[in-house]
Amino acid sequence: MSLARVHNFAISLDGYGTGEGQSRDAHFGHAGDRLHQWMFATSWWQPGGSGGVDDVFVRQHDPGIGAEIMGAGKWGHPGWHEDPEWKGAWGPNPPFHTPVFVLTHHVRPSIEMEGGTTFHFIDASPAEALETARKAADGRDVRIGGGPTVIREFLAAGLIDHMHTVIVPILLGRGVRLWDGLEDLHENYQVEATSSPSGVTHLTFTRAGT
Amino acid sequence: MSLARVHNFAISLDGYGTGEGQSRDAHFGHAGDRLHQWMFATSWWQPGGSGGVDDVFVRQHDPGIGAEIMGAGKWGHPGWHEDPEWKGAWGPNPPFHTPVFVLTHHVRPSIEMEGGTTFHFIDASPAEALETARKAADGRDVRIGGGPTVIREFLAAGLIDHMHTVIVPILLGRGVRLWDGLEDLHENYQVEATSSPSGVTHLTFTRAGT
Repeated sequence: MSLARVHNFAISLDGYGTGEGQSRDAHFGHAGDRLHQWMFATSWWQPGGSGGVDDVFVRQHDPGIGAEIMGAGKWGHPGWHEDPEWKGAWGPNPPFHTPVFVLTHHVRPSIEMEGGTTFHFIDASPAEALETARKAADGRDVRIGGGPTVIREFLAAGLIDHMHTVIVPILLGRGVRLWDGLEDLHENYQVEATSSPSGVTHLTFTRAGT
Repeated sequence: MSLARVHNFAISLDGYGTGEGQSRDAHFGHAGDRLHQWMFATSWWQPGGSGGVDDVFVRQHDPGIGAEIMGAGKWGHPGWHEDPEWKGAWGPNPPFHTPVFVLTHHVRPSIEMEGGTTFHFIDASPAEALETARKAADGRDVRIGGGPTVIREFLAAGLIDHMHTVIVPILLGRGVRLWDGLEDLHENYQVEATSSPSGVTHLTFTRAGT
């Protein structure tokens, strides 16, 4: 069975998955890199990093994944669709190495990158996008890559099988919140919290039977 | 030095400290007792309960405390001020055993209860209330007892020295949120997260130098 999985999705204590004021030079707005410093300290990110609980969680990002779905806000800064040269925020060899489906009203031709990543642009509902991505994943799982709006919509539609979020002990105060409108979501999942010596808390939602 | 301390203040993953629809029969609105089940399972609450990390945190509630400040929403259901017989939600012997200052625009004469609790009613700013409570505490600490609006106001005013909140792995979806408008609050504190086998995560904010 091909699962829909979320990995390493960081939020602040007040639930923001990205800050306010996103731009080409500030992919997470005023949050800067504060939501991801725990990740930069892992051995997965850099030699000499820690191999502890943050590292074992972060390493679940790739295995078994055959495609990603991401929102237009992850793919590019506001206004990217007016830049025909924009190819995403990750350079010539993006860290996906699979087909990536970008949900957008501004569809454009697919872009083949180095390392196995191809960006496809689709204007589709969450369920339609997941069906398309599953076909491309060829039996493997589909990563729902964010941002917060996309993950929230997939959760609300009941499409997420496994979710790993990381609560970072900061208060951003503004931005885009993950949890809005998801009352009683926990009832469909086994929820587990694991605090790390780094200060973050890993939160996993695992759907019964998956 | 007399500190201002918060203990055992439970919030949902989406940050709600109380639910929607508070009434005489539903002190936490639609949240019911879901924010406090972790507490009922401790040995502090009942013989035979667990003596683990939830228990050692919950037992910090009383030692060293000489007075409490609470909001009108903790003291009574909406409309309590139209009931001259209302004496709080805790029966004849409330679990405070100190002076308790209720912040309200509906002041009334003080009420002396069994066991050392006296309820006083004051219409005051957070700073004024804390000054009053500190005098009554006679050198001991002051507990800021909630609800979420009161704690948020004391945090925003920079008056909290130590805060223990408990993140409960549920999504309430609506109610009163603790964190709104507290951008960068963490910068004034040492923040630590400790997950418990019960599923909750204890979050402590300790002010530098306290």
